[in-house]
Amino acid sequence: MDPGDLDELLRAVKQGTLSPDAAAVRLKSLPFEDLGFAKVDHHRALRRGFPEVVYGARKTPDQIAAIVDRIAERGQNVLVTRTDPEVHSLIAARRPAARYHDAARCLSLSMREPTPLPGRAAVVCAGTSDVPVAEEAAVTLEFHGAAVDRIFDVGVAGLHRLLDRADTIRAANVVVVAAGMEGALPSVVGGLVDVPVIAVPTSVGYGASFQGLAALLAMLNSCASGVGVVNIDNGFGGGYLAALILRGRL
Amino acid sequence: MDPGDLDELLRAVKQGTLSPDAAAVRLKSLPFEDLGFAKVDHHRALRRGFPEVVYGARKTPDQIAAIVDRIAERGQNVLVTRTDPEVHSLIAARRPAARYHDAARCLSLSMREPTPLPGRAAVVCAGTSDVPVAEEAAVTLEFHGAAVDRIFDVGVAGLHRLLDRADTIRAANVVVVAAGMEGALPSVVGGLVDVPVIAVPTSVGYGASFQGLAALLAMLNSCASGVGVVNIDNGFGGGYLAALILRGRL
Amino acid sequence: MDPGDLDELLRAVKQGTLSPDAAAVRLKSLPFEDLGFAKVDHHRALRRGFPEVVYGARKTPDQIAAIVDRIAERGQNVLVTRTDPEVHSLIAARRPAARYHDAARCLSLSMREPTPLPGRAAVVCAGTSDVPVAEEAAVTLEFHGAAVDRIFDVGVAGLHRLLDRADTIRAANVVVVAAGMEGALPSVVGGLVDVPVIAVPTSVGYGASFQGLAALLAMLNSCASGVGVVNIDNGFGGGYLAALILRGRL
Amino acid sequence: MDPGDLDELLRAVKQGTLSPDAAAVRLKSLPFEDLGFAKVDHHRALRRGFPEVVYGARKTPDQIAAIVDRIAERGQNVLVTRTDPEVHSLIAARRPAARYHDAARCLSLSMREPTPLPGRAAVVCAGTSDVPVAEEAAVTLEFHGAAVDRIFDVGVAGLHRLLDRADTIRAANVVVVAAGMEGALPSVVGGLVDVPVIAVPTSVGYGASFQGLAALLAMLNSCASGVGVVNIDNGFGGGYLAALILRGRL
Amino acid sequence: MDPGDLDELLRAVKQGTLSPDAAAVRLKSLPFEDLGFAKVDHHRALRRGFPEVVYGARKTPDQIAAIVDRIAERGQNVLVTRTDPEVHSLIAARRPAARYHDAARCLSLSMREPTPLPGRAAVVCAGTSDVPVAEEAAVTLEFHGAAVDRIFDVGVAGLHRLLDRADTIRAANVVVVAAGMEGALPSVVGGLVDVPVIAVPTSVGYGASFQGLAALLAMLNSCASGVGVVNIDNGFGGGYLAALILRGRL
Amino acid sequence: MDPGDLDELLRAVKQGTLSPDAAAVRLKSLPFEDLGFAKVDHHRALRRGFPEVVYGARKTPDQIAAIVDRIAERGQNVLVTRTDPEVHSLIAARRPAARYHDAARCLSLSMREPTPLPGRAAVVCAGTSDVPVAEEAAVTLEFHGAAVDRIFDVGVAGLHRLLDRADTIRAANVVVVAAGMEGALPSVVGGLVDVPVIAVPTSVGYGASFQGLAALLAMLNSCASGVGVVNIDNGFGGGYLAALILRGRL
Amino acid sequence: MDPGDLDELLRAVKQGTLSPDAAAVRLKSLPFEDLGFAKVDHHRALRRGFPEVVYGARKTPDQIAAIVDRIAERGQNVLVTRTDPEVHSLIAARRPAARYHDAARCLSLSMREPTPLPGRAAVVCAGTSDVPVAEEAAVTLEFHGAAVDRIFDVGVAGLHRLLDRADTIRAANVVVVAAGMEGALPSVVGGLVDVPVIAVPTSVGYGASFQGLAALLAMLNSCASGVGVVNIDNGFGGGYLAALILRGRL
Amino acid sequence: MDPGDLDELLRAVKQGTLSPDAAAVRLKSLPFEDLGFAKVDHHRALRRGFPEVVYGARKTPDQIAAIVDRIAERGQNVLVTRTDPEVHSLIAARRPAARYHDAARCLSLSMREPTPLPGRAAVVCAGTSDVPVAEEAAVTLEFHGAAVDRIFDVGVAGLHRLLDRADTIRAANVVVVAAGMEGALPSVVGGLVDVPVIAVPTSVGYGASFQGLAALLAMLNSCASGVGVVNIDNGFGGGYLAALILRGRL
Repeated sequence: MDPGDLDELLRAVKQGTLSPDAAAVRLKSLPFEDLGFAKVDHHRALRRGFPEVVYGARKTPDQIAAIVDRIAERGQNVLVTRTDPEVHSLIAARRPAARYHDAARCLSLSMREPTPLPGRAAVVCAGTSDVPVAEEAAVTLEFHGAAVDRIFDVGVAGLHRLLDRADTIRAANVVVVAAGMEGALPSVVGGLVDVPVIAVPTSVGYGASFQGLAALLAMLNSCASGVGVVNIDNGFGGGYLAALILRGRL
Repeated sequence: MDPGDLDELLRAVKQGTLSPDAAAVRLKSLPFEDLGFAKVDHHRALRRGFPEVVYGARKTPDQIAAIVDRIAERGQNVLVTRTDPEVHSLIAARRPAARYHDAARCLSLSMREPTPLPGRAAVVCAGTSDVPVAEEAAVTLEFHGAAVDRIFDVGVAGLHRLLDRADTIRAANVVVVAAGMEGALPSVVGGLVDVPVIAVPTSVGYGASFQGLAALLAMLNSCASGVGVVNIDNGFGGGYLAALILRGRL
Repeated sequence: MDPGDLDELLRAVKQGTLSPDAAAVRLKSLPFEDLGFAKVDHHRALRRGFPEVVYGARKTPDQIAAIVDRIAERGQNVLVTRTDPEVHSLIAARRPAARYHDAARCLSLSMREPTPLPGRAAVVCAGTSDVPVAEEAAVTLEFHGAAVDRIFDVGVAGLHRLLDRADTIRAANVVVVAAGMEGALPSVVGGLVDVPVIAVPTSVGYGASFQGLAALLAMLNSCASGVGVVNIDNGFGGGYLAALILRGRL
Repeated sequence: MDPGDLDELLRAVKQGTLSPDAAAVRLKSLPFEDLGFAKVDHHRALRRGFPEVVYGARKTPDQIAAIVDRIAERGQNVLVTRTDPEVHSLIAARRPAARYHDAARCLSLSMREPTPLPGRAAVVCAGTSDVPVAEEAAVTLEFHGAAVDRIFDVGVAGLHRLLDRADTIRAANVVVVAAGMEGALPSVVGGLVDVPVIAVPTSVGYGASFQGLAALLAMLNSCASGVGVVNIDNGFGGGYLAALILRGRL
Repeated sequence: MDPGDLDELLRAVKQGTLSPDAAAVRLKSLPFEDLGFAKVDHHRALRRGFPEVVYGARKTPDQIAAIVDRIAERGQNVLVTRTDPEVHSLIAARRPAARYHDAARCLSLSMREPTPLPGRAAVVCAGTSDVPVAEEAAVTLEFHGAAVDRIFDVGVAGLHRLLDRADTIRAANVVVVAAGMEGALPSVVGGLVDVPVIAVPTSVGYGASFQGLAALLAMLNSCASGVGVVNIDNGFGGGYLAALILRGRL
Repeated sequence: MDPGDLDELLRAVKQGTLSPDAAAVRLKSLPFEDLGFAKVDHHRALRRGFPEVVYGARKTPDQIAAIVDRIAERGQNVLVTRTDPEVHSLIAARRPAARYHDAARCLSLSMREPTPLPGRAAVVCAGTSDVPVAEEAAVTLEFHGAAVDRIFDVGVAGLHRLLDRADTIRAANVVVVAAGMEGALPSVVGGLVDVPVIAVPTSVGYGASFQGLAALLAMLNSCASGVGVVNIDNGFGGGYLAALILRGRL
Repeated sequence: MDPGDLDELLRAVKQGTLSPDAAAVRLKSLPFEDLGFAKVDHHRALRRGFPEVVYGARKTPDQIAAIVDRIAERGQNVLVTRTDPEVHSLIAARRPAARYHDAARCLSLSMREPTPLPGRAAVVCAGTSDVPVAEEAAVTLEFHGAAVDRIFDVGVAGLHRLLDRADTIRAANVVVVAAGMEGALPSVVGGLVDVPVIAVPTSVGYGASFQGLAALLAMLNSCASGVGVVNIDNGFGGGYLAALILRGRL
Repeated sequence: MDPGDLDELLRAVKQGTLSPDAAAVRLKSLPFEDLGFAKVDHHRALRRGFPEVVYGARKTPDQIAAIVDRIAERGQNVLVTRTDPEVHSLIAARRPAARYHDAARCLSLSMREPTPLPGRAAVVCAGTSDVPVAEEAAVTLEFHGAAVDRIFDVGVAGLHRLLDRADTIRAANVVVVAAGMEGALPSVVGGLVDVPVIAVPTSVGYGASFQGLAALLAMLNSCASGVGVVNIDNGFGGGYLAALILRGRL
């Protein structure tokens, strides 16, 4: 039932060609999902202007390019995660504004400036191997309008490097921490700050890291309170949750 | 928004005290869940007459008795799983029709005869330790109106016992198979019949059975086609799914 | 002992050249499997006309083509799962009726129309990455004569899309649900319908999805009753079990 | 080095009895931790007025009572998690203001009103067995000054109950979702709202739930973005993280 | 169809009251399982004189006593594993010949001497905590007529104790090795002998032994050839397999 | 210290050129490993004539060829497992007697006939995908002099095929059973025979087979007694243990 | 064969009553283990004066008392781990020097002063729940003669407490670190020091700590070099390894 | 705050332009990390002369070459692990002193002789497949100045080979043991020696070795005391910890 149908039905009631009882029966027997869908649409409309995100893995370059085109034509910003320079070349030929974020393996196309999010986010990572995941989080945050401080390569085995950057971390309103191996960094950072910490385990490590399981379990068991965990290597998820938290400050 | 509200709104449209446009706006802005809830309720009404099932574990005898009372007062049948004779005593004092199924650790209270389900179900189990789970499935089936053949203690290490009962198993329209340890029985049964087999892994075993994990994995990997698996020790779930399958024959 | 042997033996008894006792001894000492095999054959004969299914993975194109030929020569329908266009080219050269189902990665060759199964099946999946598994289930159902409704891309994070299709799903007599990641869809669908739900976990996801383990565990623990689970990515298994359930309605 | 020491040293420099160079050497050779400790203390001082939380499990009633006394004497609020009525009796004898939260198994002692946190939190749970964990989250939030809406018993297998409460959930600025078994609820809730969702897996379930592992994995793999996960049964952790998110709105 | 039925049928053929063709039809249509069952019975008859074994865990003392009685009345030996002195008292009151094997937690009742098995078995274990499992294996072997050498407390961390007993071990025709913790003993023993080694992992250990999983995996990965593994703590299984191997020498 | 050295020393004692005390000192100060080594050598000498086995995986063709050469020069038979035709070509150029066992992926070079082992071994497997592992076991047995019956493709879902071969299986003195997926075959075979069964789980399967883990756990939990398990895909290990068992009959 | 036997044999050779050949045969046929055993004994003699350690769990008080008596009678020190005050009472009645270490759940009986080990050990733990494990390590070290600094309750979420004690930690020659939950402390400590760090995971935690698995995996994946790990809760093992490291400095 | 700032501040105090109180305030409010960083630097300075280690995996040849250059320019030795001959060629062109350790897959560049470490290390491994890991440990030790004895191919299934080398092993002050499959070797070696044993599980094995998990669990459960474990395949970690232990003897 689209809005036109509803109008028609109500007009029929007004004109007396449909009794209120008959109209009630018809309305009650409608699949509620249709109204629900309308409502959700309306709800989504409220969100209009928010960027869309495409998970690039498992999609062909042509598929991604087609999706990006469709979104860009509506004038919306779009972020593609887990993609590569080849996809960027394909898209940039038609849309030179497309930008490839090498370290994050993301592509962004901004048709207009995102509304700036209040406050700052810090993105912290343990080792250079964690940078791709951390960058995915940072680019996701920036794409949604956040100001981001990157504090990379501050693993817990060299505490002074972390402490040296503690003021920057403490200045943030939300902190995303990416770490592999023993996944200890969110606990240490969580002890330094009083804001939400989003922990992103990475699959960095070998042997008994079991592709990030060790870091994941460590983060779930963090002795620091205020730490929420996302999936292994899910830099986008960490960045997106952090962006939602900053937006709550609007 | 309850039906009365809707009627009132439609009458207001008819009487001209509310314009169709204003009514449309109000209808569209309604939380769709309200209508949805009504619809689901209606849907549930269609199902009226079906028995209710209470998971007894983690509930106190008094809580169970209270729930059973409330259901029985509406004239509905009720099945309580994972319960014990103490609960039965409590309930039977007030409702002598309550029956305790010892081997299945279930209590049933039938306020009227269930509609008989067409066809037959076979409930098969490997060893005597699997009987509680198999009985839970069998009692669940019977409670929903199914005719059940019990074929117990026919583990695969004594194939002749199983083959000796093969004709009874082949006569069923759906087969529930409960087995612990290596969980091989559903594969063997699945090779004998051409009807759906519902496999229920049990936690019977020790050491590397890992509380039913070995049987569960075996059943998921069955080389026989037509086998669906439910959770470990979930006799109720197996029996309920089998009852749904029989009901499809109505 | 083939039927001829048995006849001969019985005739010898009749003619008095073999005493009943000696015949009894010979009959008793026969490997029971021979008679059993005959019986099973007879049993299989009852099933004649049912299509055969070949698991294509781990077989060479030539092996598959040879098997398909042998089955087709008997006039039977055949379905090859987990195969590719190369195999189709090889077979189609000789048997142009062979059809390749791209999304399902299946090849079917129908020598005659399958007996239509009563009722309808719905095949539901969560995301576009789950489509290959869902299509394998759908093609399997259709190959066995079922009418299938496909409801794809209705993941639980966008509930309105699922609810929008709820009537189609509720119209089905059995529902196959394929989902990866958190594997929540069968629980939600199971709450909407009163027919058997066959849950197929897929290996879609990354990190802590552990190649489908997360979805598998979720489905086994479904809070909705009436859900049976098959192996990860086992679209064929899900479709075949659903076909058996529909056939029970014959 | 305590503040007095530092003053003395600087006065010696002023009086000329210690050269600036010698003072610099002494200051540089100080264990930096001492100054650091001071700083952290100062930092903690900034946080003064925040309540303290005691993890009650593994502590004797006497130990808990002693800790509560010490905190209360400083005029601070204190929350004890994972405790029981016996501990409450012991403490209430001396401090009648102590309150026991039965469903949450928590004890709180408020010496003064907490600063109200801006916005609202919704605490959602799937089944009645998840209530203790959900209540722990809710009590934690309220203890920190948050306004909390409880939406309990809205599991995904009965979607209408959840949708019926969707507006309340959508009105929240942060949502805590506790669920056991298949752990699907955070994905469904995450699809309904645009605020951070904190998922708390519970150990509710049996068999292949593996004490909450199934729910944990499902939540980590949520197809809804914006979901952060805490440890199994960690209602406090979920509530605390939510409180931090609300406080960011101050 | 029992033997009498078969005789009757054949006599009818002889007497001409049943044609060979009709008889063939009847014979072919018999459930093969019946003949099969007869055959298996006959097969079992061949094995007559072999003792029976009852798994005592999960059975009540009365149940065990009843089973033991029934077997003893047939004049057969019986072994009850995983039982306790209470059961022994109950049985010994009526059958004084019943013997309780304390370390093995087994009860045996021998109505006659078992046929001695040829050769010798060695039962080896690593630490005193492994003795119950090793004794279960040894008692099982002796109950089946084997001569057993016990070589206990020869863990690999004190190699000289093991080497000191090497000649006894090398004199055996089959070796059962029970070990917990790191489960290294079967590999070391397997390198010393040229006969089959049956490895029994025990649940002895703590922490990362995961109830015997560490020992189980170690034994499955033994670098020594000729090692077969049974379930964790399955002393009976190890002893029984060793007895079968010795019996092959008859 | 080789035997010659020892003779020399003792002769020096006899001739008086070495005092008993000095000789005692020299003997006692010998590293006991040397004598031990001599003894083991002697022990190995007893085994002379037994073939050697080379694990081909992870070795280059040249390394394998060199090892085979060295063994062949001593006149000993040699078996290479996990190898390929390329290695065979390399070796066959110099040693035409080398034979490649295609299905088993083994190469054997027999310099003389192995001593025949008494009795027969049956090698049973479930599906055609298990054949490589089963053949590795069969070739290993034959290489050690055993007579082998192959009973392939007798999975438990088609019980009649297995029962049809039951007499052959029952005629064996030891049975090796290779199976993947649900790993049920050893339990069924173990129930048919009274001889040792060696179960070899294979990595055949997908999804929740977890590369053979499902089959491994099933076999360890076999409800049939008399089953020993070797590592996943370890056809050689199964065949070698079976050969040791047959040799015990010498 | 003891040394006297060897002398006798050699003298018989000298005297001509035993031929060198016969002597060689006798020597070769000796179980080499006897000499090996002698050698190991000699080796153990070198270690004389070292204390013995008894693992108290799974032993009865009487068994422990008997073992302690036997060791004490030889004048040796003895440490009993995993024991309780009841055992202490039993032993102290006869041997008042016995001392019970409450926090460590250990009993020590020193018949003489242990040789002091050079250098110092630091024993560090994260939370108060880890103290029993840390104390077991500390008591083990002291029992072996080490000087120990205890640095307890310095978890990584409160870094200032740890840094405040950094100088004491850096002064140690070996550091034992016990931690549960996320197990991050050894990585942080390993980054502060340049001496061996022995990490002891504890089973402290709940939910996804999986009884210490999370801490264990974290420690194995430590990004700090120079960290060795022992079993979960194995405080004795950690302390003993640390004592061996200190002894190397003798 | 750099040292110059501190000097300036103290001079201002001396000159009276800054009061001691104001100076104290400024000092207390300094970020402690700055002083801490200085201190850590100083601390690192103490370690000057120690070689640096680069983890080569996941780095491009150019990145490695650049890092090596930067370190070499400071006159420091450098070790690159997990690298290949291609990287060596690149570096050797400019720095001919660079040496590639083929078996260990390491590259070392020594600008000067390392300070010899006191004592000896033994590096032991089980099979030839473990050699790369063992060599990585050995090269790491030698690079840090240790004298190393290699005892390779002494798996526990051929005990005599191990015992034959026991004296060499016993002569070491620390032993590194690398083993895959069942990981039993550290237990056996740990029983032979009285010095620290560092166990390195390797991923050698197949099937149920689960890429080294079996060996890892075995080593953590070693019945020999004095064994510390590092990550799977972490030869560097094992060698480095052993080097630290030897250095403690300085």
